[in-house]
Amino acid sequence: MEAVPQVRFQVVAECSHTRARAGLLHTPHGTVETPVFMPVGTQATVKGLTQRDLDREVGARILLANTYHLYLRPGHELIRQLGGLHRFMGWPHAILTDSGGFQVYSLSGLRKITEEGVLFRSHLNGDAHRFTPESTVDVQLALGSDILMALDECPEYPVSREYARQSMERTVRWAAAAFRHYAELERRDGGAPRGELFPIVQGSTFPDLRRECALRLAELDAGGYAIGGLSVGEPRPLSLEMVEACEPLLPAGRPRYAMGVGMPEELPEYVARGIDMMDCVLPSRNARNGCLFTRTGRVIIKQSRYRDDPRPLDEECACHTCRNYSRAYLRHLFQAGEILYSVLATLHNLRRYADIMRQLREAILGGTFPECLAALHSEPPEAA
Amino acid sequence: MEAVPQVRFQVVAECSHTRARAGLLHTPHGTVETPVFMPVGTQATVKGLTQRDLDREVGARILLANTYHLYLRPGHELIRQLGGLHRFMGWPHAILTDSGGFQVYSLSGLRKITEEGVLFRSHLNGDAHRFTPESTVDVQLALGSDILMALDECPEYPVSREYARQSMERTVRWAAAAFRHYAELERRDGGAPRGELFPIVQGSTFPDLRRECALRLAELDAGGYAIGGLSVGEPRPLSLEMVEACEPLLPAGRPRYAMGVGMPEELPEYVARGIDMMDCVLPSRNARNGCLFTRTGRVIIKQSRYRDDPRPLDEECACHTCRNYSRAYLRHLFQAGEILYSVLATLHNLRRYADIMRQLREAILGGTFPECLAALHSEPPEAA
Repeated sequence: MEAVPQVRFQVVAECSHTRARAGLLHTPHGTVETPVFMPVGTQATVKGLTQRDLDREVGARILLANTYHLYLRPGHELIRQLGGLHRFMGWPHAILTDSGGFQVYSLSGLRKITEEGVLFRSHLNGDAHRFTPESTVDVQLALGSDILMALDECPEYPVSREYARQSMERTVRWAAAAFRHYAELERRDGGAPRGELFPIVQGSTFPDLRRECALRLAELDAGGYAIGGLSVGEPRPLSLEMVEACEPLLPAGRPRYAMGVGMPEELPEYVARGIDMMDCVLPSRNARNGCLFTRTGRVIIKQSRYRDDPRPLDEECACHTCRNYSRAYLRHLFQAGEILYSVLATLHNLRRYADIMRQLREAILGGTFPECLAALHSEPPEAA
Repeated sequence: MEAVPQVRFQVVAECSHTRARAGLLHTPHGTVETPVFMPVGTQATVKGLTQRDLDREVGARILLANTYHLYLRPGHELIRQLGGLHRFMGWPHAILTDSGGFQVYSLSGLRKITEEGVLFRSHLNGDAHRFTPESTVDVQLALGSDILMALDECPEYPVSREYARQSMERTVRWAAAAFRHYAELERRDGGAPRGELFPIVQGSTFPDLRRECALRLAELDAGGYAIGGLSVGEPRPLSLEMVEACEPLLPAGRPRYAMGVGMPEELPEYVARGIDMMDCVLPSRNARNGCLFTRTGRVIIKQSRYRDDPRPLDEECACHTCRNYSRAYLRHLFQAGEILYSVLATLHNLRRYADIMRQLREAILGGTFPECLAALHSEPPEAA
């Protein structure tokens, strides 16, 4: 019995001037309209939001959870025992989990990369752990993810060309190992329904390494492809150049996911370069830190200019925050360190991101993506 | 032109075995069913809850806000300018504000009580301020409260009988001054609609002082009466004894408000002694600290017994938290320090309090209050 693909991608429209496309990503937990921005729910929660608000107010149909964090706490076996991550966190829609690799490199003080995998210490208590291409697949299967990521190495920026090549080749070998392991499990289970495993294109800031990595990973015939190692400190034009380098070499019928990007004004740039999926902590983290994104620019809510401002954050926004609360009230909550500030601010920023993505999708479907891109370019960065 | 009373209380049922009664408290912002527990929204927010959830999920029709906090930040004049507290915080239902007195005594390091009022330093920045019986009425009018409290002195526990008498007499003089000031403002404005001012019965733990205070305040013919200085460290039976001492001397047709109480098991005790209104930070603060109240006792969520517990906090609770999330998930959020823990926990505890109050009210209306009291007495304090 052959495995039935549980995740299927349909391109429904393509821009004739750019690489942008609109699609439908069918998953075991519903269909996601692309291009899509995925809110980050690191520890099985998007910080500050109920799953109800994420669903109804933001309109999210897919979120990202962090394999590294959930592996350490509460533990993937506990989550498996409680029916998987969807049930554990009460989220009916799709879930993508990352490979754990990025967090090992960014959060874990001590780590050692070998051919077999990566040894690291928990940022919670210092305990020693090991991730391998096989074990991170097992962890993500225990979580019950709709989309799983193969373990990769995400080098810091900058690295030497030599290290970037070594690292990229290891990432390719690890991806192959993860896919072999996954296929073996599928055979053993008789093709029981599972999520889809995506490999991750690395290669630091070297276009030729990115291209080589994309070509070699394309041989895996995966259900989708991620581009990792972006937004790790390199200049922004370089991030976009890396996407341009590898995107044409990835199978056109499969979704492409740019990991860990980006600022609101970057979203259309990635979409214009053929990206279907993105994620970033930026809208939620910035919200909590007092930076709010609106159609008229950024609002730094602690500024005294907002002290007596009776207007909503964004006059055109339909989110719960903008429908009900003034900038003056949000500023008061922020200054007073109130929990409700984080709740309302996160709700708004994630809705803003979702609205941008919906606007881009509609433009692609309506054949007006280039105009939409130009209009977004002209938006002011700071609020009037 | 005479002032139209904006707040009116109707007793709709009385228990024939206890002093308990059910009533309707009509305010400029809707009618509140009593007995009622009022959630505390210190800084114009009940910590962790949106006003929508407080309204729809908890079912709150009145909340308490702290005059002291709002006077200091963001300032009552700013709130007046922005249309009053209801509009500022987006709360369509009733608001009661305290006198500011209790916070001056509990939060302000330096304070000096004189016949004119109390000098204190802000807990935020050390600035010197003064509250007088007149100024706290002005602050609460700027906030636009439905129910205002007259400035009182809340002595610590224990105090000497001599100090308790001095302090009680000052509280009576301050109440008279607050009422004179309020009446003067009403005359000046031609009876414009306003909230109702309640004086506060003090007298520490001396029943005769409590009685004397109640009798002297009853002469003010106020729209309602508060009993203050409870739960300040005295043994619980003494708190109830103080209520028993003064309650029969307060006008039967006016609501009685026991300030700053209590634990879930204390709520029926106060109601049985003729109390119509209560408030306390306990359900919301305990929620944030990991103590959750259920029909089967307290759940200390950090305990490892809840690690893999798939049950809701309270099987019979209809709140958003219990409908959607397990104890295991709540424990994970608590252990991980996630904002969503505070949101979901606060929602549950406040709903639990509201449910207890609804249960008590229905029992009074149905003539079964004594049985209800007995049943609540037999509930276990710790979860099975």
